[in-house]
Amino acid sequence: MKFQADVLRLCLVTDSTLCGERGVLAVVEAAVQGDVSCVQLREKALDTRAFVERARALKALLEPRGVPLVINDRVDVALACGADGVHVGQSDMPPQDVRRLMPHALVGLSIETLAQLPAAELAPVDYYGVSPVFATGTKPDAAPALGLDGLRAIRARTARALVAIGGIHAGNAAAVMAAGADGVAVVSAVCAAPDPAAAARLLRDSMGRAG
Amino acid sequence: MKFQADVLRLCLVTDSTLCGERGVLAVVEAAVQGDVSCVQLREKALDTRAFVERARALKALLEPRGVPLVINDRVDVALACGADGVHVGQSDMPPQDVRRLMPHALVGLSIETLAQLPAAELAPVDYYGVSPVFATGTKPDAAPALGLDGLRAIRARTARALVAIGGIHAGNAAAVMAAGADGVAVVSAVCAAPDPAAAARLLRDSMGRAG
Repeated sequence: MKFQADVLRLCLVTDSTLCGERGVLAVVEAAVQGDVSCVQLREKALDTRAFVERARALKALLEPRGVPLVINDRVDVALACGADGVHVGQSDMPPQDVRRLMPHALVGLSIETLAQLPAAELAPVDYYGVSPVFATGTKPDAAPALGLDGLRAIRARTARALVAIGGIHAGNAAAVMAAGADGVAVVSAVCAAPDPAAAARLLRDSMGRAG
Repeated sequence: MKFQADVLRLCLVTDSTLCGERGVLAVVEAAVQGDVSCVQLREKALDTRAFVERARALKALLEPRGVPLVINDRVDVALACGADGVHVGQSDMPPQDVRRLMPHALVGLSIETLAQLPAAELAPVDYYGVSPVFATGTKPDAAPALGLDGLRAIRARTARALVAIGGIHAGNAAAVMAAGADGVAVVSAVCAAPDPAAAARLLRDSMGRAG
């Protein structure tokens, strides 16, 4: 898959608890109808076998729709399902190893503080996940919120693509983009929405068109 | 690495809690002095980054000594550190995927019941970990003990190499081998021993020579 310039514009990060009885697949399918540009599968509690099965089902859903699938943390799952990318945090596999194992993948790295940026700039990644921009209840171990000023400070110090995450919804996505993000990632704003397709569409519209 | 016929004869499976303050590396180094033939790194609580670091340190220790390193469950960690093999359980990555991602690796699959054998026989693996032969406190989620009769029943139905695990020590290892195992794997008998080198040596001696 060749990555479009705006592939990171609206990323859905899954949360199986928030998806609830509808299931992750159904929520992702709806979100794609609402025009999310990328899906990151994040599973912290599944056995590897179940994780691979879910990843493979998502890949089969997304590939015909031209939406890339990124796997959170697990390169083994990404390789098994043929994912388009991997997103790693500061305590996941080092980006150098990820790149070596998946030379053509979309690789993202989470940045929670300005202090993490110098080391990150040496890492062979395609984008940073900047988190959390706002306080969020979705990720219990999240770092303190960066705020729009924190996002601007990171923007000023790197040329890399920035995907902002943490407490983002249709009411603040435009401000996040104005602060220098290349895209936003959402969890609860779509996974917990009664109508995930409409929620994704609302987010897209709130951000304006690309460029 | 070319695998010797007796590479599975005495496998050490690590347990960082049982290794205690000595650390996994020091215990493994001692166990190798005591002539273990294979080391399986098992980490269920570490972040991926720390797991990769530990795996790499073990690989650097074992490679010059000609002892293969097998990683429990995680193909990503195995690929990152250049491990010689992967051991998966029934809820880990499917063996077909493991084999595809690591075509030349030593691949083991855990078998807890005779009922799991028919499906396992179709899987592209090199050996079965037959567990638990005896009751054990090391693995809290272990299945009921198979006993020597259970091991013999599996032995009668497969030509594949069998590594017995679960409650094995110098006092029963010879009986386990006589029941048809090609090797034994131990956790606490070495990791919890005051002198892991002597404990491994005692096990080796109790099993008699190969053949």
